[in-house]
Amino acid sequence: MRDAGDAPPGSLSVIPVTAIPPVQPGSDLSDLICAALLPANPGGPELCDGDVVVVTQKIVSKAEGRIVTIDTSDPLAKSKIVESESVRVLRRRRDLLITETRHGFICANAGVDLSNVDSGTAALLPVDPDRSARRLNSELKRRLGVTVGVVISDTFGRAWRNGVTDVAIGCAGVSAVLDLRGHDDAQGRTLTATQVCVVDEIASAAEIVMGKDRNIPVAIVRGVPRSWMGSGSVSDQVIRRPSDDLFR
Amino acid sequence: MRDAGDAPPGSLSVIPVTAIPPVQPGSDLSDLICAALLPANPGGPELCDGDVVVVTQKIVSKAEGRIVTIDTSDPLAKSKIVESESVRVLRRRRDLLITETRHGFICANAGVDLSNVDSGTAALLPVDPDRSARRLNSELKRRLGVTVGVVISDTFGRAWRNGVTDVAIGCAGVSAVLDLRGHDDAQGRTLTATQVCVVDEIASAAEIVMGKDRNIPVAIVRGVPRSWMGSGSVSDQVIRRPSDDLFR
Repeated sequence: MRDAGDAPPGSLSVIPVTAIPPVQPGSDLSDLICAALLPANPGGPELCDGDVVVVTQKIVSKAEGRIVTIDTSDPLAKSKIVESESVRVLRRRRDLLITETRHGFICANAGVDLSNVDSGTAALLPVDPDRSARRLNSELKRRLGVTVGVVISDTFGRAWRNGVTDVAIGCAGVSAVLDLRGHDDAQGRTLTATQVCVVDEIASAAEIVMGKDRNIPVAIVRGVPRSWMGSGSVSDQVIRRPSDDLFR
Repeated sequence: MRDAGDAPPGSLSVIPVTAIPPVQPGSDLSDLICAALLPANPGGPELCDGDVVVVTQKIVSKAEGRIVTIDTSDPLAKSKIVESESVRVLRRRRDLLITETRHGFICANAGVDLSNVDSGTAALLPVDPDRSARRLNSELKRRLGVTVGVVISDTFGRAWRNGVTDVAIGCAGVSAVLDLRGHDDAQGRTLTATQVCVVDEIASAAEIVMGKDRNIPVAIVRGVPRSWMGSGSVSDQVIRRPSDDLFR
């Protein structure tokens, strides 16, 4: 098995998986991903132990049938869906709703997405993205014999900064937040700077090769430190509890 | 000149630059970086046209002399420095201040950092990180003949999500925010999802190889789409104007 390829020691590679066909409700994502990789696809990349497979929310939602029809004659149709996917509205400005989803994500329009889905339909977030990641992780292990991490990514806006970035909404086989408090330097680095959300960084790195306009839904991130691999959960580790949150 | 190395087409490489010596006030960063790269350092990586060089805020601040002494006998010493670096305090909880800096960044403790600096001192943010990036960009062009992007990165917390990630506080030679509105798909993707903060994604990708505990202050990101290269500014493109911001 090849390991980290020809990249210099300590470096990271982010490899797009380009041969994923359109995903339909009921599609088996592990089927589609395995078919795009070596050995099934001679021109595709290999998946190696220690790699992290990043998969966009959209194809996970499609495969899991999280697609609803929208009444295009109703100007409030999208808002109604957004509110039904939300437990709370934080801010509202014109068309834009910033809400808290049932998962606890704070994002625009509860993650409801009308792009790259059939006209008259919208894609909702997976019900339990960590579970989606765990399933894919197990299937890749079973089919290819590899121990990898899986990250389900989505595109979120942020407070205070323009532009969206990709973040993790689910993960398996990789730590979501790395706790470096045992590694503090002598001067006493503060707590806030020592818990690193590595799955968000991995999702962002993957977005660079996926591209919103290139429509590549899967990427392999190779060279992640081995100590990051293991169990992880976006729900448990990344979503900030309301009592700890200064911005709700 | 080598271009994107041996990585598969469309892939990204993130290469740590490990041979950077300790940086002192007055150090010339372009000197130190060039000395760590080919041809000056036979074991170091090469810098190629189209690469993006990511440099942590800390060594930029050190080189620019943005180091202040802290009266360690005064329990309020750090708070006083943070407030002097801030134009506004958004939130305060125990030791933690979330403030707006003169640049317009919203971050913990105005970016004032006591880790990996001499005891009794603190590092402040660069006065104008875009300018710092432009200077380094010009120097790398002059010395190595390469046209690259430069990103100055720092570690910020976020609202609603645990853990820090690296973001860009300055850039040059690379777009900060990519506007894909001309690339909308037929279903009409919304505005919020089509302006991508690519410099934050690049900073996050670089952090994966830099590591808070590995203390590597420079990385090369290779394989960024050529269309992203050109002029860019964090100050002009990334900092959200207060009138557009729903969370101040």
